[in-house]
Amino acid sequence: MARINENYQKLQAGYLFPEIGRRVKAFQESNPDAPVIRLGIGDVTLPLAPAVVEALHAAADEMGTSEGFRGYGPEAGAEDFLLDAILEHDFASRGVTLERSELFVSDGSKQDSGNIQEIFGQDCSIAVTDPVYPVYVDTNVMAGRTGLADDDGRYGGITYLPANADNGFMPGPPSQRVDLAYLCSPNNPTGAVASRENLTEWVAWARANQAVLIFDAAYDAFIQDPALPRSIYEIEGAKECAIEMRSFSKRAGFTGVRCAYTAVPKALMGSTAAGEAVSLNALWGRRHSTKFNGVPYVIQRAAAAAFSPDGRKQCAEQVAYYMANAAHIREALGAAGFSCFGGEHAPYVWVQTPDGRSSWDCFDHFLQGAHVVCTPGSGFGAAGEGYIRISSFNSRENVQEATHRLTLL
Amino acid sequence: MARINENYQKLQAGYLFPEIGRRVKAFQESNPDAPVIRLGIGDVTLPLAPAVVEALHAAADEMGTSEGFRGYGPEAGAEDFLLDAILEHDFASRGVTLERSELFVSDGSKQDSGNIQEIFGQDCSIAVTDPVYPVYVDTNVMAGRTGLADDDGRYGGITYLPANADNGFMPGPPSQRVDLAYLCSPNNPTGAVASRENLTEWVAWARANQAVLIFDAAYDAFIQDPALPRSIYEIEGAKECAIEMRSFSKRAGFTGVRCAYTAVPKALMGSTAAGEAVSLNALWGRRHSTKFNGVPYVIQRAAAAAFSPDGRKQCAEQVAYYMANAAHIREALGAAGFSCFGGEHAPYVWVQTPDGRSSWDCFDHFLQGAHVVCTPGSGFGAAGEGYIRISSFNSRENVQEATHRLTLL
Repeated sequence: MARINENYQKLQAGYLFPEIGRRVKAFQESNPDAPVIRLGIGDVTLPLAPAVVEALHAAADEMGTSEGFRGYGPEAGAEDFLLDAILEHDFASRGVTLERSELFVSDGSKQDSGNIQEIFGQDCSIAVTDPVYPVYVDTNVMAGRTGLADDDGRYGGITYLPANADNGFMPGPPSQRVDLAYLCSPNNPTGAVASRENLTEWVAWARANQAVLIFDAAYDAFIQDPALPRSIYEIEGAKECAIEMRSFSKRAGFTGVRCAYTAVPKALMGSTAAGEAVSLNALWGRRHSTKFNGVPYVIQRAAAAAFSPDGRKQCAEQVAYYMANAAHIREALGAAGFSCFGGEHAPYVWVQTPDGRSSWDCFDHFLQGAHVVCTPGSGFGAAGEGYIRISSFNSRENVQEATHRLTLL
Repeated sequence: MARINENYQKLQAGYLFPEIGRRVKAFQESNPDAPVIRLGIGDVTLPLAPAVVEALHAAADEMGTSEGFRGYGPEAGAEDFLLDAILEHDFASRGVTLERSELFVSDGSKQDSGNIQEIFGQDCSIAVTDPVYPVYVDTNVMAGRTGLADDDGRYGGITYLPANADNGFMPGPPSQRVDLAYLCSPNNPTGAVASRENLTEWVAWARANQAVLIFDAAYDAFIQDPALPRSIYEIEGAKECAIEMRSFSKRAGFTGVRCAYTAVPKALMGSTAAGEAVSLNALWGRRHSTKFNGVPYVIQRAAAAAFSPDGRKQCAEQVAYYMANAAHIREALGAAGFSCFGGEHAPYVWVQTPDGRSSWDCFDHFLQGAHVVCTPGSGFGAAGEGYIRISSFNSRENVQEATHRLTLL
């Protein structure tokens, strides 16, 4: 038989969310009348903004005409109208200058953050914060850059940087050199946000160590303080050391629509074993044009509509709605004695489990006792043990009912 | 600096179509008034079918309501309505029984055929036909399964099976064992189609050699003879040795809409080095759920609409339109003395270059002399040298004008 990629066999259990899905399904089959409220997976719930729906309609009509029909899109993954809207609203508005050819539009930041490792060498060393969005780790495991997992689920060869209450859930760079470091801010799962000082420290470290930062800013729209950086390129020197990912999933409710992008500045270089400098922009461009075929035209138009005056206003209202949910979760659970973190510049509240329960024990306890689905912190890494993540993506009524039930436990 | 994946540096020049794009752009800049007709890249030109446009509208409206909004989709990449439509129309109608859990819906067969190699071992041996769709080869080069390319562009470690007039451009299996063999029928670029006997021989070889066939049937809709197999699973025993890919790109004009799927039967196994059998369906499922997030809901609805009674009729009319173009190309060029192959069950006509020209020389000759863009056969592999591919994806008027100009050369 054909040999399989045995690195897959190092992966721990299922990917986190399928495992949650299995437990919830089993509970619902045993308790068909239980009014389960899902604050687990970070999936938006509000309908698409009217400006986005309108753009989908207009683009669908275009695609039905000989003049308006579009086939394969450009290699960047999207047409100039979307690239230009991104450059204007996400970067120029923050004083950052990038070029069209430094942007690559895709169908998701999950994909981009999972695929980016392909352009790096097999022996690159990796650092991640702990807890961490599982895709960063799992895709490196699948690629064979790690050893086996230990009893805590930590893979050999990866440098884990614990995020905890002592460091405000935003660890600084590692003491040793690594090739690639994955950073996520606003953070999934902890809801923490990197300050300008945090990012400045990371950029200085990356430049001093000739490391590459993979900066995942999929949740940037939830930052409430305009003084906080939204792009890592707001930090001097970041273009020489950082790749940045952004998504429409959470800012515009696109989890079922699919659009994101990755910025790879032309100033960013990697090297061959012989020491020759190679443009990472060129490598990622080669990967993108060989293994991707562009975002659907109708979706490109929908994404661009999120930048229109109406679209920005409507999407900002959605973000405000979720952030009011997050504030409610923090306040209600805090008043009931839970220790809550995050949720101020992110849609996630990171809650210490009560009574010293393990994360999965707390997950089951919340599900059985309050019919509330959360996400066990340990599913994001060993340092997430003893925490659970509560998502603000739900209706106000459900969030209020769920927190009420949790306070009664 | 972080080490790059040096396998990328083994890749020959640019990916084929970007290189064509560069040459056409340069020509147009020097000859701004030349009426260029593009029969190069295999991109559809007819507008989306009305049933598809209607489905996009209906789904956009759904997504704008609280009740109809959909976030992240299921791990299979699509909801049951699309899986069931595929099972009924693409398989049950041909006597093939597959389960929903054997289908994985994606944003393209290019992606699937490029990504499938990830679940196989690093030392798997590969066979491809020559000429070949470049993605099969390039993605294995990027993954490090090959040596350097020789002067003909053939990579060390890959078994190339020449497709030529002697074997009807449909080579049989290799004489030695390989782990993975990529087959494409109807073929891109040669336009040849595999007979039941061809596929039976391949399946028998794969079973005898415990090899896996990657069967790319992205062009199945162009098969005109109902007796020809459309799915490799119409061949007895194929479920134990074959993965199949299908696409909506060409059957329904989805090159700018993006939907495809891959079937991985549960009976299909790979093995570890220690000889343990492992389900390839489970491995691909793990890859799909970790590195993909589903096809946009509105696109799923659009794809399902291609299976509705109106959708099937309208899409069949589009296919018939292109096939009439292909027939015209064959007839007009044949009458002018060109040797033409393919184009009977595929949208591509494979034409021997006149006067012993090389493929790229012929490309430039057609572009300069007739303002017609074709695709040089050598871009698909060494055995494509001396041929060019002409696509039937254009308006009847353009196809007639282009062939007329070519006959005057």
